[in-house]
Amino acid sequence: MTAPFQFDIEAQDPDSAARAGRLHTPHGVVETPVFMPVGTQASVKALSQEDLRTLGAQIILGNAYHLYLRPGTEVLEAAGGIHRFMNWDRPVLTDSGGFQIFSLTGLTKVTRDGVTFRSHIDGSLHTFTPETAIDIQRSIGADIIMCFDECTTYPVEHGEAARSMRRTLEWAQRCRDHWRTRDSGRQALFGIVQGSVYEDLRVESAERLVEMDFPGYAIGGVSVGERKDEMLAAVEWTAPRLPEDKPRYLMGVGPPEDFLEAVARGVDMFDCVMPTRNARNGALFTSQGRINIKNRRFAQDFGPLDPACRCPVCQTYSRAYLSHLFRAGEISALRLNTLHNLFFMLELASSVREAIRHRRFGAFKQAFLQAIAA
Amino acid sequence: MTAPFQFDIEAQDPDSAARAGRLHTPHGVVETPVFMPVGTQASVKALSQEDLRTLGAQIILGNAYHLYLRPGTEVLEAAGGIHRFMNWDRPVLTDSGGFQIFSLTGLTKVTRDGVTFRSHIDGSLHTFTPETAIDIQRSIGADIIMCFDECTTYPVEHGEAARSMRRTLEWAQRCRDHWRTRDSGRQALFGIVQGSVYEDLRVESAERLVEMDFPGYAIGGVSVGERKDEMLAAVEWTAPRLPEDKPRYLMGVGPPEDFLEAVARGVDMFDCVMPTRNARNGALFTSQGRINIKNRRFAQDFGPLDPACRCPVCQTYSRAYLSHLFRAGEISALRLNTLHNLFFMLELASSVREAIRHRRFGAFKQAFLQAIAA
Repeated sequence: MTAPFQFDIEAQDPDSAARAGRLHTPHGVVETPVFMPVGTQASVKALSQEDLRTLGAQIILGNAYHLYLRPGTEVLEAAGGIHRFMNWDRPVLTDSGGFQIFSLTGLTKVTRDGVTFRSHIDGSLHTFTPETAIDIQRSIGADIIMCFDECTTYPVEHGEAARSMRRTLEWAQRCRDHWRTRDSGRQALFGIVQGSVYEDLRVESAERLVEMDFPGYAIGGVSVGERKDEMLAAVEWTAPRLPEDKPRYLMGVGPPEDFLEAVARGVDMFDCVMPTRNARNGALFTSQGRINIKNRRFAQDFGPLDPACRCPVCQTYSRAYLSHLFRAGEISALRLNTLHNLFFMLELASSVREAIRHRRFGAFKQAFLQAIAA
Repeated sequence: MTAPFQFDIEAQDPDSAARAGRLHTPHGVVETPVFMPVGTQASVKALSQEDLRTLGAQIILGNAYHLYLRPGTEVLEAAGGIHRFMNWDRPVLTDSGGFQIFSLTGLTKVTRDGVTFRSHIDGSLHTFTPETAIDIQRSIGADIIMCFDECTTYPVEHGEAARSMRRTLEWAQRCRDHWRTRDSGRQALFGIVQGSVYEDLRVESAERLVEMDFPGYAIGGVSVGERKDEMLAAVEWTAPRLPEDKPRYLMGVGPPEDFLEAVARGVDMFDCVMPTRNARNGALFTSQGRINIKNRRFAQDFGPLDPACRCPVCQTYSRAYLSHLFRAGEISALRLNTLHNLFFMLELASSVREAIRHRRFGAFKQAFLQAIAA
C-alpha cells in the first residue's frame, strides 16, 4: 500500500541529475519525467479528453484564475470537481493563478494580505489571498495544487526580487497552514521557489520552502523572458537543494531542448503552452527540427509531417494536406497540428524515461539535440 | 456484377413518394435517403476524416470553385485526386461551383460561353465554362460531379428565370457532351433542374434534362431565400418527372423537417451546411427540438445534450461542460458541437431508411416532427 502521493525514484542517471520516478496520486500514477499538457479552462485547446487519452497524456494542467472566473467554483463544486466536470479520470494539477493574475489582469492592489485585480474577461473586481487561492483549488479538486505566489517581471532588481520572494515565502506558509487544516489527503500542495535570476535569493527561497516541508516543489518565475542560461542556472541553484524524494516541477518550460536540459538537472515535471500554441500557429516539431506547415514548399509534399513519428496525424495525412488545411483556415488544422505537437512532447518524455531506466540518457539527449539542430 | 453507378430501389413507401435505395459508386455503396456532410475545402469544418468514419458518413461533398482556388487542381492531380489528398476512401460528390461563383465572387462577365469572376480570396480573375467546370471536377476526381449551372437570385422575375434556366440547359448539354467524350466510367454527371419558383419553368427544365439522359438529377436553385412551401413546390413539380430509377438530389437542403418532407416527395440525396454551421454557433439539434448551448440555463445542467442521442459527445460530456467550452471560446466546442449535429442528421437519415424499409415512414415522420415541435 502506497500513500496517496508517494514518489518513488526508480532510476537515477549515473552521469547527470536525471531520474525516472513514479508519482502516486488519487487518480493514478504519473511516470516522471512527465510533460503535462496545459488545459487552462478545463480543456486542452482544440482537443477532447478522448484525444488526450489517445496521445497518452498522464496528467493535465488547469488554472485556478481562469477556472475561478469561468465556469466558476460554484459550477465546479456542483459537478463534483474538475475531473467529473470535464470527464477526465487521470490526475490534474492546478496552478494557483498567481502568474495569470500578475500577467493578464488589471491589477489594482497588492498588499501583504493578497491581490486585488480586475478580470480580463469583464473587468469585474476580485481578491485572491493565499487562503482563497487554496479554497478555490479545493473547489476545483485537482490532485496537485500550488501555493499562491507573487510573480515579478523580468528583468527585476535584486531588492525588489528579494522583497517579492520573501512575501511569496510568507504566502507559502499561509497556504500550507490553510491547506493542512482542511486537506483530506486527496490533494498535494507544492511550494514554489522564486528569486528571479539571483542565486542567493533562489537558494534562500528553496531552503526556506524545504523547511516548511511540502509534498513537492516547483521552480517558478521562469519562462518570463529570461535567457535560456539564466533559466537553467535557476534550476542548477535550486534542484540540488530540494529533497531527493520529492517531485520537482519546472513551471512553464518548455521547448524539447529545454526539457532535456532541465531533466539532466534533476527536474521531474514540466508544463508549457508552447507545443499547443505553436501548433495553432502552424509551427510543428519534427525529429529533424521545427517546420512551419503553412510554407508553400509543402503544397505538393505528399509525405508525412515527420516520417519518424507514430502519431495518428503522421499515420493519416500528408504535409500537403495539412498545409492546405492551415492555409485555407480550416479549424481541423488546429486540432491535427495540436495532436502532432503534443504527441511529440509526450513521446519525447516517454523516450527520456526509457533512456534513464536503461542508463543511456546522456547518449539519447545528445542524439536528439543533434538531430533537431541538423 | 453491378455497373459503377447502378441505383437500386429497395423499398417504396406505400403512402408517399419516399423510397430507400442503394447507389453504387467506385468508392462503395451509398444507402439512400442520404445526408451528405459538406466538406467545401476538402475538410468538413472542425472534423477529421476519422471523425466522419466514426459518425458513419457515407459520402461527403466538396466544392469545385473552392478546390480550384485552393489547393488548386495541380495539387489535387499530383495527389491522385481528392480521395487520396484527404485520405477519405468513401464516395465524394463535388458541386460544379456555379452556386458559389454567383454568390461569393465579384462577377465581371456572364456570357453564353461561361462566367468570368474574381476570386473571393485574392481578387484574381478566372473564367469557368461548362467544359472547364467538368475538367476541374475530373482533376478533383469525385465519384459524382455536377453540371455547371447559372444560379439566379431570389426573388427573380419569370422572364429572367426562363432565360437563365434555358442557358443552364444549354450548359448542361455542353457539360454532358464534354464529360461523355472524356469519362472512363469513374464519375457520374448529374443534371441540375432550375426554374426558380415557376412551375412551367421547373417542368420544362426537368423534362429537357431527362431527354439528355443523366446518371442522376439534382434540384437546384433552392435554399436561396425562398419560403419553405416554395421549396417543397419545386420538389413536387420536379421529382415525379425525373426517372424512377435514377437518384434525385435536393441541393442545399436542409433542416431535419425539410429533409423529411423532401424524402416524402421522392428525394434521395441531401446536403446542407446548416448542421455544421449551426454547431459552430452553438445551435444544437435534439430529439426535443433545438437548443442554444451558450444559454446560461445550461451552466449547471450536468445531463447529456440529448438523453436520446447515442453520439460520442452525448455519451461523454454534460450540457454544463459543453456550455462552458462554448462560452469560454474553446476550439474544442466547435468540434464537439459539430460531431453531435452531424450525428443527429446522419442518424435521422438512417432511421428514415429503416422506416421506409419497414413500411412505417409516415408514422416515423409524424412522431419526429411532433417531438421537435414540442
